Amino acid sequence: MNLPSFQDVRKAHQRISPFIHQTPVLTCQSINRMTGCEIHFKCENFQKVGAFKFRGATHAVLCLSEKEASAGVGTHSSGNHAAALALAAAMKGITAHIVMPSNAPEIKKKAVAGYGAQITFCEPTLQAREETLARLTSELGLTVIHPYNNFEVISGQGTAALELLEAVEALDIMICPVGGGGLLAGTSLSTKYLQPNCRVIGAEPLQADDAYRSFRDGYIHPSLHPVTVADGLLTSLGTLNFAIIRQETDEIMVATESSIVAAMRMIWERMKIIIEPSSAVPLAVILEHPEKFKGKKIGMILSGGNVDVENLPFR
Amino acid sequence: MNLPSFQDVRKAHQRISPFIHQTPVLTCQSINRMTGCEIHFKCENFQKVGAFKFRGATHAVLCLSEKEASAGVGTHSSGNHAAALALAAAMKGITAHIVMPSNAPEIKKKAVAGYGAQITFCEPTLQAREETLARLTSELGLTVIHPYNNFEVISGQGTAALELLEAVEALDIMICPVGGGGLLAGTSLSTKYLQPNCRVIGAEPLQADDAYRSFRDGYIHPSLHPVTVADGLLTSLGTLNFAIIRQETDEIMVATESSIVAAMRMIWERMKIIIEPSSAVPLAVILEHPEKFKGKKIGMILSGGNVDVENLPFR
Repeated sequence: MNLPSFQDVRKAHQRISPFIHQTPVLTCQSINRMTGCEIHFKCENFQKVGAFKFRGATHAVLCLSEKEASAGVGTHSSGNHAAALALAAAMKGITAHIVMPSNAPEIKKKAVAGYGAQITFCEPTLQAREETLARLTSELGLTVIHPYNNFEVISGQGTAALELLEAVEALDIMICPVGGGGLLAGTSLSTKYLQPNCRVIGAEPLQADDAYRSFRDGYIHPSLHPVTVADGLLTSLGTLNFAIIRQETDEIMVATESSIVAAMRMIWERMKIIIEPSSAVPLAVILEHPEKFKGKKIGMILSGGNVDVENLPFR
Repeated sequence: MNLPSFQDVRKAHQRISPFIHQTPVLTCQSINRMTGCEIHFKCENFQKVGAFKFRGATHAVLCLSEKEASAGVGTHSSGNHAAALALAAAMKGITAHIVMPSNAPEIKKKAVAGYGAQITFCEPTLQAREETLARLTSELGLTVIHPYNNFEVISGQGTAALELLEAVEALDIMICPVGGGGLLAGTSLSTKYLQPNCRVIGAEPLQADDAYRSFRDGYIHPSLHPVTVADGLLTSLGTLNFAIIRQETDEIMVATESSIVAAMRMIWERMKIIIEPSSAVPLAVILEHPEKFKGKKIGMILSGGNVDVENLPFR
């Protein structure tokens, strides 16, 4: 298996820098006081399209040959990767074909259409999505950009941690959410190269703990019908992602739904910034294990800020 | 009437600078595209206690004599000024007495208590609040810090615009919300001194348009039972504030409730930052009058970010 190294992350950063936001690193006195930690938040909720996914998608698009680019790119997704690939393709002046289930929320359809992508609707099953994308691919010669199980995507996602590690020295712990493993794999590569003494932790909802079990058991457990407020973390690990995580990540920890909502609310109320539930899982892990993190200098990646403001988990 | 000048704002800034956050000035490509303007947002939602009110309260506390300081300060408020005065007093090591109506929201009681203020509860009428504060004042020798009709408070509030005007040159328009007029008066002083060609506009809810009518008619109309989502803008203009606004402000414009909510939502969704409804009124004014603002370089003060996340106006 050909896995990216930190040098690939470094090259990805050079390539994508003109196109991405170098997002700010924020701290919050009151959250530090409440947790007893010193947390440095890398704010990918302020990234273009509102999520770190834009880094990987942009890198994948920039790595296409002229011939590949002219045929266009495709993916099936109704989430942040779809919007990220749509905008990345638009910036490069090529076509993105996004396969979406017919029942996707209007707001997501609009976002993807707004970036100029071609949307093909299909039945809301994984099989229909894969078949529809396969058909488009063979008809149009698209290059499929997988949301996480992709060499260039992983290299791109590692650039968020790279920027954080260059901005803040001597971190004790780096922590980020884990779903398919694109962000965690990239973050692990950057961290272990730039600050090898820093421990890397993936944070996952207890109710979608397939990465936790996969890491423990040494093989990929599929993610079967998970129910969690962290709707960006529903997918199973990719094979490339898992191979990197096994080598470079120190630990995967889980958090309950109530902790995730409490952590999300803490960041909203104390920092006055909007993050999506998936981004709150790392802070939720800290809230559930205060002794483990007390006194530590922590880097945390806030992965995205796309929420439906009409349907929030607070009550 | 002894009114502050820009020199008082400048001195206030020197005094409070060690204690306040120099808040960021943000721009947003998609809001610029949607409005056809170039808007520079001064983010006082990131100020301590989540609102610009901390500037004025801190300045008022720092201007006390030793004797006044030792007796403590007082105000009646259940809003951002109460929290601001509580924290400002705590930082100075003096006591703040806050008179609050017994039916104030739990979250506001907790915030004020959390900053170490002494809370005295009273019946939820303006008369009871004023009488309770008067009794405390005579018993304890407090100095009352009015939320806006106060020389030092106005000088302090003008420092937000001062920072914005020093960060961004050649603004065509400066726009901020107007309630009691502390922010608008201070903002007008700073703008007309530092960038005299810049037009200053106060933005007010149509359903609480007492400042609009006062400005038009040349005398203060009281604010009588207004009903608006912009709960920070319910009060009548102060006499000091009105005198400055008549001299230095160019115009007051109003916006409907639906525009205020649409503007708030636009800032939440596009900028991923949390602002309170009152802060959305200036953008709402722009959305209602696109031709007037098209092509203009605009400074806008986002006044605060304190919302009850369980009770939001989106649907």
